[in-house]
Amino acid sequence: MSVQAGRPVRVAVLGCGSVGSQVVRLLRDQADDLAARVGAPVELVGVAVRRLDAPREVEVPAGLLTTDAESLVTREDVDVVVEVIGGIEPARSLILAALEGGASVVSANKALLAEDGPTLYEAAAKAGRDLHYEAAVAGAIPILRPLRESLAGDNVTRVLGIVNGTTNFILDKMDSSGAGFTEALEEAQELGYAEADPTADVEGFDAASKAAILASLAFHTRVTAADVHREGISEVSAADVASARDMGAVVKLLAICELIDTPDGQAVAARVHPAMIPRSHPLASVREAYNAVFTESEAAGQLMFYGPGAGGAPTASAVLGDLVTVARNRLAGIRGAGESAYADREVLPMGQTRTRYHVAIDVEDRAGVLASVALAFAEHDVSIQTVRQEGRGDEAQLVVVSHRASDAQLSATVEHLRGMDIVRDVTSVMRVEGEPE
Amino acid sequence: MSVQAGRPVRVAVLGCGSVGSQVVRLLRDQADDLAARVGAPVELVGVAVRRLDAPREVEVPAGLLTTDAESLVTREDVDVVVEVIGGIEPARSLILAALEGGASVVSANKALLAEDGPTLYEAAAKAGRDLHYEAAVAGAIPILRPLRESLAGDNVTRVLGIVNGTTNFILDKMDSSGAGFTEALEEAQELGYAEADPTADVEGFDAASKAAILASLAFHTRVTAADVHREGISEVSAADVASARDMGAVVKLLAICELIDTPDGQAVAARVHPAMIPRSHPLASVREAYNAVFTESEAAGQLMFYGPGAGGAPTASAVLGDLVTVARNRLAGIRGAGESAYADREVLPMGQTRTRYHVAIDVEDRAGVLASVALAFAEHDVSIQTVRQEGRGDEAQLVVVSHRASDAQLSATVEHLRGMDIVRDVTSVMRVEGEPE
Repeated sequence: MSVQAGRPVRVAVLGCGSVGSQVVRLLRDQADDLAARVGAPVELVGVAVRRLDAPREVEVPAGLLTTDAESLVTREDVDVVVEVIGGIEPARSLILAALEGGASVVSANKALLAEDGPTLYEAAAKAGRDLHYEAAVAGAIPILRPLRESLAGDNVTRVLGIVNGTTNFILDKMDSSGAGFTEALEEAQELGYAEADPTADVEGFDAASKAAILASLAFHTRVTAADVHREGISEVSAADVASARDMGAVVKLLAICELIDTPDGQAVAARVHPAMIPRSHPLASVREAYNAVFTESEAAGQLMFYGPGAGGAPTASAVLGDLVTVARNRLAGIRGAGESAYADREVLPMGQTRTRYHVAIDVEDRAGVLASVALAFAEHDVSIQTVRQEGRGDEAQLVVVSHRASDAQLSATVEHLRGMDIVRDVTSVMRVEGEPE
Repeated sequence: MSVQAGRPVRVAVLGCGSVGSQVVRLLRDQADDLAARVGAPVELVGVAVRRLDAPREVEVPAGLLTTDAESLVTREDVDVVVEVIGGIEPARSLILAALEGGASVVSANKALLAEDGPTLYEAAAKAGRDLHYEAAVAGAIPILRPLRESLAGDNVTRVLGIVNGTTNFILDKMDSSGAGFTEALEEAQELGYAEADPTADVEGFDAASKAAILASLAFHTRVTAADVHREGISEVSAADVASARDMGAVVKLLAICELIDTPDGQAVAARVHPAMIPRSHPLASVREAYNAVFTESEAAGQLMFYGPGAGGAPTASAVLGDLVTVARNRLAGIRGAGESAYADREVLPMGQTRTRYHVAIDVEDRAGVLASVALAFAEHDVSIQTVRQEGRGDEAQLVVVSHRASDAQLSATVEHLRGMDIVRDVTSVMRVEGEPE
């Protein structure tokens, strides 16, 4: 199953939805360019679909369509399998069968890679084949290749990403129009930016998968979706967004991957939650459904990668980029650099992560309240950066922004506040990111 | 001279200035990580310098220093030569000697690559060795690898870059403080952002080199610095910057590379000049000495890559990323994908490039002036988008923004205006970019 000079590189595509149909279109429309860039023609030999007669965005010659994906991936003449089905099964079994059968694989499947990446990486290594998946994180934006290769001589310390377009669209609407979450979600659904069941996006599952993949690559350590602390945006209120605005900040759903110094060396943490970031931060200007990934590394400093995070054609662009690399490697008879987990660092639980909190508290408006609240923070060793007090009839609101402390200390402080007589309600708790202490 | 399993990859560094010393430092400080990522230790075997006793940012063991660069690059045991001397000679001869001697090369030398890249690419191909140069454009920002590899399955149509930190710092100062060019340049010099002789930066030579490299990679066509139309920022006035602000725009020095449809197919154009871009454009928020490159491609749409465009450590990060790739290839006994110029498109002269003009004209304040000016534009087939008229004593100012037309038509229009009786002076001409007609 090696590729002989002169013969085309043969590609099978699994799935012909919005991404798959654009992959098929680009293979056809860019055939001449692809051949020149690969060094041999790239030939589409089969497209696996669930239903032969489903409506499609692109015309696929009937002879190429099949419902038998299992047979397609193990065909003797297939060099590269492109998996754009999504989900765990049957995608995982098909990728494993493809690798065992000697094909290289390009996948856009973030959920699978975040849940069970190591199984796939080991199968690719054992088979001596490539497994590339640039399209799995932030759509068209080249971010995995820069992390794996361009920054390979540097030491990445932090990755902050807006990696889910649906939630960014919703939060951007809330910021620009003052709308509440429900109203903004409905607008996103009407415009096709959110699905009828928006859970995977708004509850942060999609972003958590991407955080796991980013953390694994950035820190050469295996991080799975289960290691990622996850909070969604459904609890973010119009008041939170307004409060962020008052302090010159904006609320974003961030995927945050960090290298953390510990007494035993360095550990890794990955989390997804809404956070306030200053409007001057490069990520703050990422509007609508766009994505961006911001990296900090010791030598390069701060870099940002920005672009469309989803959509058929953008995602297909990332798939085709991987396909060209994988096809070149096939022609050269080599395998590119595989997944690397040599650092094998400990993954810290959320409680040990150091963050800052923005806490809004409704309190009774009487003397000594501020001192009592300050004391509660001090008892948990949490240092306060700013307090803003606003009287409102017989009660008052305090807005406290803390310095950096462990998440465990901060959440214990909030628990403590909730139990105090003078505290009527803790109306909002949100982390603050993207600026020094 | 092949690399045997177990033996280190041996590296020679040419130059130990601000970039070279950081390369040496990272090779030392990141040695364990580099070994894990490459698959073998990376050993520094020599550093070529002009003077052995010059002060340096990093301590180099005396035994590694040499003034004999020629001998170093052709040493039997050198696998990779890192060239961070800059300039045309002796850098070119040393790189050619290194390649001929069997070493792979990593270079940060934009001037050399833009002037005589093809000679180097051919030498690398003939020797079967890698020549990588990510650090030559936009410092630490991974842009060449994304263009070459991530977008290899897409069709790039346009690259807009802020690729010179000095000029961006100056223009940003002018925008934020209202300062004139001279004052802002002096501040940049005081802060170390501009050199004592700032010509290469402020007259656009540095950006033109980078534009040539970007255009070559984006369009698979050989474009040299001589093909790039170049205008600097020394003529940009405080009034231009204020005028941009009035129309919701900001002045940036842009490197613009475009794929242009012609009757015979597609051609390429590359240019560097100051231009007004809308404040809503992602490039508008690139402040101070930062760089960013914005790409448009058919499938991926708009992407942006942002980060520090210069500085010892950031540039060294890009050099080390290339070094890891090149070292891995050495260990695998292969050569990565080389330069590709298969498309071999025509490079259009500036006159045929289609742009938009912002023209400020001092005219006599009498009836019919606006009509006469509009007629001058019409005579050259240039359509006007907006005219703003402001009376000032016995004369008036007209500010005209045109629709897109060929640069030849636009400059003929300006020439025509300058010859008109009612026109006292054409006080400012600047191109407008980054938005549809």
